Amino acid sequence: MHGSPHALSGDLPAFAADVIARLRGRRPRVHCITNSVAQAFTANILLAIGAIPSMTIAPQEVADFAARADALLVNLGTLDPERRTAIEIALEKAAERSRPWILDPVLIDVSASRAAYARALTARKPAAIRLNAAEFAALAGAETGRDAVVHFATRIASVIGLTGTTDIVSDGKRHFEIGNGHPLMSRVTAMGCAASAVVGACLCVEDDALAATASALLAFGVAGEIAAQSSQGPGSFAVAFIDALHNLDRAALVARGRVS
Amino acid sequence: MHGSPHALSGDLPAFAADVIARLRGRRPRVHCITNSVAQAFTANILLAIGAIPSMTIAPQEVADFAARADALLVNLGTLDPERRTAIEIALEKAAERSRPWILDPVLIDVSASRAAYARALTARKPAAIRLNAAEFAALAGAETGRDAVVHFATRIASVIGLTGTTDIVSDGKRHFEIGNGHPLMSRVTAMGCAASAVVGACLCVEDDALAATASALLAFGVAGEIAAQSSQGPGSFAVAFIDALHNLDRAALVARGRVS
Amino acid sequence: MHGSPHALSGDLPAFAADVIARLRGRRPRVHCITNSVAQAFTANILLAIGAIPSMTIAPQEVADFAARADALLVNLGTLDPERRTAIEIALEKAAERSRPWILDPVLIDVSASRAAYARALTARKPAAIRLNAAEFAALAGAETGRDAVVHFATRIASVIGLTGTTDIVSDGKRHFEIGNGHPLMSRVTAMGCAASAVVGACLCVEDDALAATASALLAFGVAGEIAAQSSQGPGSFAVAFIDALHNLDRAALVARGRVS
Repeated sequence: MHGSPHALSGDLPAFAADVIARLRGRRPRVHCITNSVAQAFTANILLAIGAIPSMTIAPQEVADFAARADALLVNLGTLDPERRTAIEIALEKAAERSRPWILDPVLIDVSASRAAYARALTARKPAAIRLNAAEFAALAGAETGRDAVVHFATRIASVIGLTGTTDIVSDGKRHFEIGNGHPLMSRVTAMGCAASAVVGACLCVEDDALAATASALLAFGVAGEIAAQSSQGPGSFAVAFIDALHNLDRAALVARGRVS
Repeated sequence: MHGSPHALSGDLPAFAADVIARLRGRRPRVHCITNSVAQAFTANILLAIGAIPSMTIAPQEVADFAARADALLVNLGTLDPERRTAIEIALEKAAERSRPWILDPVLIDVSASRAAYARALTARKPAAIRLNAAEFAALAGAETGRDAVVHFATRIASVIGLTGTTDIVSDGKRHFEIGNGHPLMSRVTAMGCAASAVVGACLCVEDDALAATASALLAFGVAGEIAAQSSQGPGSFAVAFIDALHNLDRAALVARGRVS
Repeated sequence: MHGSPHALSGDLPAFAADVIARLRGRRPRVHCITNSVAQAFTANILLAIGAIPSMTIAPQEVADFAARADALLVNLGTLDPERRTAIEIALEKAAERSRPWILDPVLIDVSASRAAYARALTARKPAAIRLNAAEFAALAGAETGRDAVVHFATRIASVIGLTGTTDIVSDGKRHFEIGNGHPLMSRVTAMGCAASAVVGACLCVEDDALAATASALLAFGVAGEIAAQSSQGPGSFAVAFIDALHNLDRAALVARGRVS
């Protein structure tokens, strides 16, 4: 139902352009249980790429919103008891409806309780996990690098999207390394959280979770490079980034994509 | 006390310019019980138009803030138990002090529990309700369109501001249709929530709730058109929109207003 | 350990440039218990100046985050029961680790319960308190002005940073008056909250709390003046302000600083 017309044959930039075109055509709903710092930026990023966000964590309503969503984002930032309850309700609904969900284990390297919860969640079949190197080390108990990512993806049978100067994406069998992005991306709060939300949006329109995750991260990196060209600092960068994601086209993805 | 020097005779743009001038002169306080996604943008929009926002939902303090406010916004997004409690406390204080309040029944078309609460709130005499077409259908159980809006406004004895490509504003006896706005407004999160807050600000300085609501929505639509002229996407649009609202003047309202 | 190579001898702009250079070099962590309206803007401001923010108020995790932080911000906006609990946990951890903390008693002039809590917190040795004139009057029970600030700083043995058209900073023995800033700063929500966070960042790299506070407020005021030069209103001002803080250099601080 959500399948792509063509399987990903290796030409990720062209494939990503197709994914984004489908996303803009279908306008899928992504329900986000995400941290309080990231909510507004994440909603604006999802709107910019063409998806429709919702954000409630209220126990009386989260099931209704999760039931209507095409994908679910579970972001562990500001993980208060209300968010834990909302995650449980929403995951149950996503499982019931066979909807994909993505895990973003924010800063689990700092909080032991959050790390324990993240490890428990990996057993509940997220379609993808997006994280940075410190979070990967806390989750996988391993050094970072391509081999560690491939091994961990195999072990938990989910796609891993490890973002950094080079993004590493793997489902254990296949992998991509994406060289796009810009240093200012690390100077805007919730940039990683928003990337995970875009992975969720791509999962709505692409059944191959590896292809969906790699498409989202490539789009993010290319938009970052475009935004940096007209920025004077992290404030104007964040604004230009939203514009760039909204205006991203096939030509830019193909011309700028650095994928191996 | 808060009356306008002249009643609205039909020339909405000139009237709206007067309302905004009073608002900038008096700097009224609007207490907002609003969703967590919209809080920062709403506060910035209220500051831009000349009002003073407050946002707490803490049960120990909300009565003090509501008592000091000139109007109250009740927005049902992210409607957790804390927000429900805060709404009850604040509504009681607003009733006690005869302050106007505005209802924004965000996404009641998705959540049954939220819709039921919204219906209960309509019986508690909001000065105005601002919503979109899907929310209107969920609240009024009717098709959208001018006649349905006029009928529902009569039935509940509140002003209805239904926003969309054309905004329809009615108190059951009179009505306006406002043709201003821009498609990018639907690509910025909390834009509707912020519009409701500006309705609240206008209610502080204009006793005629129909005139206040129509003035706010006209100002919003005109600011959207001005912002779109210097935008490259939803990121720069949101920034330019705040600027446009801050700089909005009589000449722009009169020249651009499309009201019937 | 965090001491400056040179004590503040009176040349605040040059000293502030040193503080900011250290901050950018060391990238300290500031844990912020702050209001829901200010969280995203505060995080972006801290990233812009070179610090690393964290924001959780979850009771299970706040001790872990506070333990890793180099300074703690306690901001009393949207002061719900969860935030009060988080403040207690974080203050205990900060005391245990001898980390500086800063108090921002937001809008205590409006809420009696919040004001009472703020007064209790002043006895727990904040390194600095940043507030505006109305908040100062509510906290100190005194008129504003330099003498009142100096007297109150002496009484509670903390640095006071009273911001306004002219900022007054005192530890009871020494004081600075800073004439920088721009009126648009009062039209952007959470601008004061973010200033307090930057004071927290400077406290991480400068043991003299008076010097740290004055450096932060000077940097804020100068960045505001630079941002205003390229702004068309509060929307573009907020964006340009983040850029200006990120790009702030010694030459701008020395050329623009108005300190007495």
